[in-house]
Amino acid sequence: MILFNRGFMEKDDAIVDIEDRGYQFGDGVYEFIRVYDGVCFEMERHVQRLKLSALKIELALPYPLEDITRNLKQLVEKNGLLNGYIYAQITRGVAPRAHHFPGSASSVLVAYVQHAERPVEKTTHGIHAILTEDIRWKRCDIKSLNLLPNVLAKQLAKKHGCDEAIMHRGATVSEGSSSNVYMVEKNVIYTHPINNLILNGITRIGVLEMARENGFRVVEEAFTVNELLETEEVFITSTAMEICPVVQVDQTQIGSGQPGRVTRTLQQAFEHRIALNSGGN
Amino acid sequence: MILFNRGFMEKDDAIVDIEDRGYQFGDGVYEFIRVYDGVCFEMERHVQRLKLSALKIELALPYPLEDITRNLKQLVEKNGLLNGYIYAQITRGVAPRAHHFPGSASSVLVAYVQHAERPVEKTTHGIHAILTEDIRWKRCDIKSLNLLPNVLAKQLAKKHGCDEAIMHRGATVSEGSSSNVYMVEKNVIYTHPINNLILNGITRIGVLEMARENGFRVVEEAFTVNELLETEEVFITSTAMEICPVVQVDQTQIGSGQPGRVTRTLQQAFEHRIALNSGGN
Repeated sequence: MILFNRGFMEKDDAIVDIEDRGYQFGDGVYEFIRVYDGVCFEMERHVQRLKLSALKIELALPYPLEDITRNLKQLVEKNGLLNGYIYAQITRGVAPRAHHFPGSASSVLVAYVQHAERPVEKTTHGIHAILTEDIRWKRCDIKSLNLLPNVLAKQLAKKHGCDEAIMHRGATVSEGSSSNVYMVEKNVIYTHPINNLILNGITRIGVLEMARENGFRVVEEAFTVNELLETEEVFITSTAMEICPVVQVDQTQIGSGQPGRVTRTLQQAFEHRIALNSGGN
Repeated sequence: MILFNRGFMEKDDAIVDIEDRGYQFGDGVYEFIRVYDGVCFEMERHVQRLKLSALKIELALPYPLEDITRNLKQLVEKNGLLNGYIYAQITRGVAPRAHHFPGSASSVLVAYVQHAERPVEKTTHGIHAILTEDIRWKRCDIKSLNLLPNVLAKQLAKKHGCDEAIMHRGATVSEGSSSNVYMVEKNVIYTHPINNLILNGITRIGVLEMARENGFRVVEEAFTVNELLETEEVFITSTAMEICPVVQVDQTQIGSGQPGRVTRTLQQAFEHRIALNSGGN
């Protein structure tokens, strides 16, 4: 059962118009929300970011955010989802094709859930990543449906037998194709600052909170590809990959080639948050 | 009646899946083809570019290009379209959402026609344009469905009562939000060279041919915003806007504030091509 605007219905009953601006322009925004033990994780932050992304492209929400939030939670319940995710997107609606905003279209919300296990294998042993030039537009802070560069970067990683592509603009590391990127050096955690060149990851927000709670210094400053390759630990974070060690980048082993101590500490803190979230249902 | 993959059907019978990668990632390419007097204009160049765009993102055509071409022509006939356009897009098909290419999805083709008059008023009197920073990705040579920056630029133009947004990366003019841009100085026509930063417009190809046929020198070199504002003539080209004079950019009048002599000469040559195209049916 999916959520289509205000209605719950079977997937096959949801009709996307070929002139939906999401389909023709990628003119929309989305969120991807983790569900652990039947409870949405970081729900409030996700829906607030959805609202912010919409605002940044002057996209009207189809109805109030509180109602969207309630409907997304109901979607989880109606589907009896325990572990997995909600995918939710809002597009600028259906109108005769023209680049500028339509005069009278109504935004279209589509959301559905998907069962998924946690990425335990990868978060335990770490992943390999490739490096690739960041060719995206200059508003990567907007979680929009214009994801073709991310798709191409992820596919390149897959071709090389890797799980993520770490992108860099010139020498500067920005983020992964679907994650934020961090390096650890002498107990200090470095990550790209929040600006127009990266997405303000919900997991990133939580990880930086946990890092500070655990006494690590956090430096939100861009670092270079060379610094990344020579550092002690690298990890990525995302809703899907949680906190995941990166043990090799291109042909270079990171640190000992094993998940690092700081990364492990943050993973433990993250487990604690998930347990609290589930307990709070 | 629309074309959906290989089938002709009523628009309401075409069902776009919510997991079509065009809808979730903008993972697809498109063409917009003019029809004059019932005949497709520059059809071969459009379908060849469609094929090239698909190739650049490793997207398989749903079936051979010759069949697509024939079906698009049939679409025009079946709808009895005399003047207007064909919109055709191909997406990477339907698959459970994941950034990397799906293992087994089939590409989805959607095409339809729309009646439209020629933009005579605008091509006769010229349009006003705004300047805006080009924030797009670095593969603007691909005619993809990732059009959000173009949408936002066009909307900004509309807000200012203008018909086009001329984009620049730093000081360098690249192209319009849905057109190529030219300036004319002492009978020389300048336009941005074909590379990854602009789309190789079909109208652009024809215009440069006609320019040379008419004895104008063509210089495919980037020019600056300041050069644009101080030049004798500015015009844009696109399938929808044909060859259209730009008589004002932001608050600056271009040349005399009237469509320029070189632009007019090219427009006449263009009329000749359209007449030949129609006669060739």
